[in-house]
Amino acid sequence: MPHIPLEEHLPGITGLLEYKKDTAEPIRKLTQFLLRGPSTLTAGERELIATVVSNGNECTFCTNAHTAAADKLLGECDTSQAVKKNIATAPVSEKMKALLTIASQVQKSGKAVTAQSIQKAKEEGATDIEIHDTVLIAALFALYNRYVDGLSTVAPADPAFYKGLAERISKGYMRLPQGYDHLKK
Amino acid sequence: MPHIPLEEHLPGITGLLEYKKDTAEPIRKLTQFLLRGPSTLTAGERELIATVVSNGNECTFCTNAHTAAADKLLGECDTSQAVKKNIATAPVSEKMKALLTIASQVQKSGKAVTAQSIQKAKEEGATDIEIHDTVLIAALFALYNRYVDGLSTVAPADPAFYKGLAERISKGYMRLPQGYDHLKK
Repeated sequence: MPHIPLEEHLPGITGLLEYKKDTAEPIRKLTQFLLRGPSTLTAGERELIATVVSNGNECTFCTNAHTAAADKLLGECDTSQAVKKNIATAPVSEKMKALLTIASQVQKSGKAVTAQSIQKAKEEGATDIEIHDTVLIAALFALYNRYVDGLSTVAPADPAFYKGLAERISKGYMRLPQGYDHLKK
Repeated sequence: MPHIPLEEHLPGITGLLEYKKDTAEPIRKLTQFLLRGPSTLTAGERELIATVVSNGNECTFCTNAHTAAADKLLGECDTSQAVKKNIATAPVSEKMKALLTIASQVQKSGKAVTAQSIQKAKEEGATDIEIHDTVLIAALFALYNRYVDGLSTVAPADPAFYKGLAERISKGYMRLPQGYDHLKK
């Protein structure tokens, strides 16, 4: 049961974003810019970063939601499973392996990011902005995972819930408010 | 040296907020709402939450900046030092001790927040919104600390820098942009 009263039909982050709208609006906007805004990383690649961090934090709701979003955007379900198991052997580019490694370091601590992992990303062709965005996306999910689990929100067990959520967030994070009423469990 | 090129006269978060303005704007807005917006917690109390989390993450820039902001808002320098050493014996209310304990759990992980610590906060008179805001402020500083240290930004050694920064952020987080040029080291 959540630690504060949230609408029962809005699990995970969805109820929190309805609880206090003045904080929800900038959170949505930041997510929209980082995960759907102009970038040389695809939306699917950025969802893999969100997935790796949420999985590292063992946040069930966020891991399921962003795995489903990555699957929807990539058009297959293998890559998201692979990056959660072992970044080094996952079917992604060497650049993405380097960026996902940085993200998994940020998940632990900002101080865990090594000069070597940054150097490797640059060698594999990552730009400064891609490195910046990877660190900030990982940091944003450090926030989300703590917000969702720190208030003990509910994570639905039904995979269909996350598929429905992924349909919506694959189109963008600012559209969620209009869709919430239909996100019944 | 930072992992990406940042303006040398803008250390810590200040250079990052100038690096990419479309992500900086919602980060500033969220911080303004949470730390300076209407609340039954004082701005000084909210800066203590930021201080405890940043200290737990060993983020030198953020710890120094928010310690200085708390000191400025509280009008004394003892409480910020005390909460960093031991929340239980710090000169704050029992409610603030309970909220700072929740914040220090969020610093570790969302899953580290216990039902007991939430119960204790409620017994000491914390409202649902105060608990919500404490968790979200702590989660926001999980983001900030990772952003600042994950990109290896510079933390000035001179305490005068943080005093100057605290003068500005004590008035609000949206005002920083206009002040940046004067934040020379």
